[in-house]
Amino acid sequence: MRIVIVGGVAAGLSAALQARRADPSAEITVLEKGKRISYGACGLPYLLEGRVASIDQLVVHPPAYFEKEHNVRIRTQCEVVAIEHARREAVLASGERVRYERLVWAAGARPARISREPRVFRLHTAEDALRLVEFLDTRRPRTAAVVGGGYIGLEAATALRARGLRVRLYHDSTTLLHREDPWLSKLVAARLEECGVDLRLNEPAHPDSLDADLVIDSTGLRPNIEILAEAGASLGRTGALAVSEHMETSLHGVYAAGDCCEARHIVSGRGVWIPLGTTANRMGRVAGANAAGRRQRFEGVAGTSIVRVAGLAVAVTGFSQQQARREGFSPVEAVVEGRERARYFFGRTIHVQLVADRNNCRLLGAAVIGDNGVLARINTAAAALSARMDVEVFAELDLAYAPPYSTVTDPLMAAARRLLRLLDH
Amino acid sequence: MRIVIVGGVAAGLSAALQARRADPSAEITVLEKGKRISYGACGLPYLLEGRVASIDQLVVHPPAYFEKEHNVRIRTQCEVVAIEHARREAVLASGERVRYERLVWAAGARPARISREPRVFRLHTAEDALRLVEFLDTRRPRTAAVVGGGYIGLEAATALRARGLRVRLYHDSTTLLHREDPWLSKLVAARLEECGVDLRLNEPAHPDSLDADLVIDSTGLRPNIEILAEAGASLGRTGALAVSEHMETSLHGVYAAGDCCEARHIVSGRGVWIPLGTTANRMGRVAGANAAGRRQRFEGVAGTSIVRVAGLAVAVTGFSQQQARREGFSPVEAVVEGRERARYFFGRTIHVQLVADRNNCRLLGAAVIGDNGVLARINTAAAALSARMDVEVFAELDLAYAPPYSTVTDPLMAAARRLLRLLDH
Repeated sequence: MRIVIVGGVAAGLSAALQARRADPSAEITVLEKGKRISYGACGLPYLLEGRVASIDQLVVHPPAYFEKEHNVRIRTQCEVVAIEHARREAVLASGERVRYERLVWAAGARPARISREPRVFRLHTAEDALRLVEFLDTRRPRTAAVVGGGYIGLEAATALRARGLRVRLYHDSTTLLHREDPWLSKLVAARLEECGVDLRLNEPAHPDSLDADLVIDSTGLRPNIEILAEAGASLGRTGALAVSEHMETSLHGVYAAGDCCEARHIVSGRGVWIPLGTTANRMGRVAGANAAGRRQRFEGVAGTSIVRVAGLAVAVTGFSQQQARREGFSPVEAVVEGRERARYFFGRTIHVQLVADRNNCRLLGAAVIGDNGVLARINTAAAALSARMDVEVFAELDLAYAPPYSTVTDPLMAAARRLLRLLDH
Repeated sequence: MRIVIVGGVAAGLSAALQARRADPSAEITVLEKGKRISYGACGLPYLLEGRVASIDQLVVHPPAYFEKEHNVRIRTQCEVVAIEHARREAVLASGERVRYERLVWAAGARPARISREPRVFRLHTAEDALRLVEFLDTRRPRTAAVVGGGYIGLEAATALRARGLRVRLYHDSTTLLHREDPWLSKLVAARLEECGVDLRLNEPAHPDSLDADLVIDSTGLRPNIEILAEAGASLGRTGALAVSEHMETSLHGVYAAGDCCEARHIVSGRGVWIPLGTTANRMGRVAGANAAGRRQRFEGVAGTSIVRVAGLAVAVTGFSQQQARREGFSPVEAVVEGRERARYFFGRTIHVQLVADRNNCRLLGAAVIGDNGVLARINTAAAALSARMDVEVFAELDLAYAPPYSTVTDPLMAAARRLLRLLDH
C-alpha cells in the first residue's frame, strides 16, 4: 500500500503514525510545503513572548523520528500543486509526480490575506513567527497594532504587552474568541484593558493602513481546499472539505484531516469548521488509520478550547446561548462566580457559564474563565457533552474535593444547580 | 411539616437548606451534638499544619445564616440518644423529647477507638483539631507517630512534617488510601519517604503503645447507625444504613445522609460506604428535599476523591484493577507518565492510570497523581464513569489544549489510547 500524506504538521503526522501502526509494510510519504515539520504551532505565541527561546523547543519530533523509528519518508519544501485522482498522482511544484494508492490531505489553512508591507506580519507558521521575532529583536518597535480578536490575535496582544510594546487591538465585532457571547467578551475585554491593551471592538481595520511600528494581522483563515476541490472533492456547508465519519472525502481513497476540513459537531450533529490543533491530531489519527485499511470513526468535535489572555485562562466547549439559538435549540444560561480552591490555598475567582436546552434539559455548552482551575471545569463539561448528558445528571457528578484543589461545592456544580432552577427543577 | 435533622455539619445542613427550598413553611430544626456547626472538616489538616490560622476560617456559614436567612432552628450540644419512631420523637440526652414528622439522620461517623492517653489524638472533629493544635503549641512535641494510611493519616503526616516534627507512619496493609492499588501506593509511599516520613507499611500498631511525643490515631471510622438501628432501620451490606435512591431508610419518613449511610456505586450498582464530605453534601441535599415532600433521586457515588500528600496531588475515581476484579469485572489497566502542561510552562510530571472492563470496554476507574493538573483529569474521568462511557468514546473526548494548561495529547487521552491497545482495538 502506497500512502501519500500532504502536510507535515499536526494532522499529517498523526495520520502518518497511525497509518504505520495499522499497516507495518505500507510505503508512507509525507509531503510538506514548508521547511519544518512537526512543530507545535500553538506554542508560536510563546516564541513571540520570549518564553520559548528557540523554535527547536516547539518541535515535537525531529524528521529522524519518523524516518528511522517509523519508516515514514519525510519530504520538506515539496509543494503539491495538483491532484490527478484518476491517475492517483500528486503533482509537485517541481513538475514531479508522486503516485499514491491512498491520499491523506492535511494541508491545513492559510491566511486569506498576506500583506507586502514589511511591518505587517501573520502568526500562522513557524516561519511567520521567526520573521516576527527577528523584527522585534532588530527593529525594536515600540507600538503594535493587532487586527483580529480570535485566539491568535489575543495571544499575540498578550505576548507583545509582555515584551513591553504599546498595543492596540482592532476587532470587527463586539464579541471575542469566535464565541458570540457578550458575557465572556466583556470579562476578556476588561482583562485586556487592565493589562494596558487599547481595545477597539466593533472597529474593522485594514492592517496596511494602521499607524504602528508593527502590525499583526490575525484575521481571515481559509481552509486549503482548492487543489482537492479542483480534483473533484466536495465541500461542506462551511466551505471546508466534506468528509465522512471515516474522514474520507467524496473522492474514493482520498482522506482529509485537520484545518482543511469540516467536522461533525457533537452537540448539533452538523458540520462545523473549528480549526484547532487538538482536533487536527484526532482527525489525523482516524484518517491515517482508515487510509491504511482500518475502519475507525471520528467522534466529532465540541469546539473545546482554552486560551491564555493576559494571564487569564478562557475556555469554551459546545455552544454559547446565542450560538445554540442559531442552531435551533431553546437555550437557557446560568452564570456563577466562585473560587477555584480554598481561600487559604490562594484560590482565585473563577467564572462558570453553562447553557442547556429548555426542552429536554440537555447540556449544550460551557464557558469558564479563571486561572489554573479552568481546565478541570471545561474538560468535565466537554466529557458531559460527549455523553449527551442532561443537567440533572450533570449537577450530580461525583467530583473530587480537597481544599488545595477545589471547593466543596465545585463552581461547575454551583452553575449546574442554578441552571436546574432556571429550568424549573 | 415538622422536620428534624440530626447532625449539623455537611449532610445535615445541606438537608436543612434543601428542605427549606422545597417547603418555605416547614418547621426545620437541626440538632447537633457538638458545639459547632457548618465547618469544613476537610480543612482540619490545614489547621494542624498552621496554614489555617483559626477554626473560624473553616466555618462555611454561621448559625445566624441558617436561623435568620433560612428560618432553620439550630440547637448545638443536643445529643440524640434514642429515636421512638412510633411516636415520632427524638429523645435527647437531657430527657427532652423532640417531635418530628420527618427525620433526617445525618449523624456522621465516629472513631471506633478513642484513647485516654493525653498524647494520643484523633483528627475527626473541630474539637479534636483544636486540642491537637493546643498540644502542639504548648508541649512542642518533637516526634510523632501516625496510625493509619487513609486520607486523614496521610494529611496529618504531611501537616506534622510541615511543622518540623519527626514523623513515623504505621499502616496495617501494604496499600494506601483505601485503594488496593500497588502502583498508586508505591508512588505515594516514595513521596512520603522523600519528605522524611518514616513509613511502616504492613505494620499494625496500637496507638497507646507507640514511642512518640504525639500520636494521631486515624484508623477505624464507624458509621453512627446504632440509635437508628435500634429504632428499626435496616443496615446495608457494609454495615452502614441502607437507604433507597430517595435517601429514605427502611423507616417510613426517616431519611439518612452522609457518613452514616451507604450509597450506590455508579460503576458496580452495589452499596458502598465511602465517607466523604462532597458525598455527604450531595446526599444531604436529596434527603432534605425529599423529607420536605419533593421527589429527588440520588445518582450515586464514584468514590471520587483527591488528597494532598506531601505536596503531591493524589486522586482516584471508580475502581482500581484489584477492586474491580473483586466486584466481578474483568479489568485491564493502563498506566502512563506524562506532563501536566508544556515544559516551558513548568509542566510537572503527571501519572495516569485507567481501568476498563475487557468484556465491554467500559471505563471502570482512574487514578491520577501529580500537581495542580490532577483535578482536571480525575473529574473528566469521573464524568465519564457517570455516563458509563466506554474507552473508545473516552479516548476521543474533545479536551481543551493550550501550552500553559495542558499538552496537545492530554495524558488522560494517552492513557486511554494505551488502554484501547491493551483491549485489542
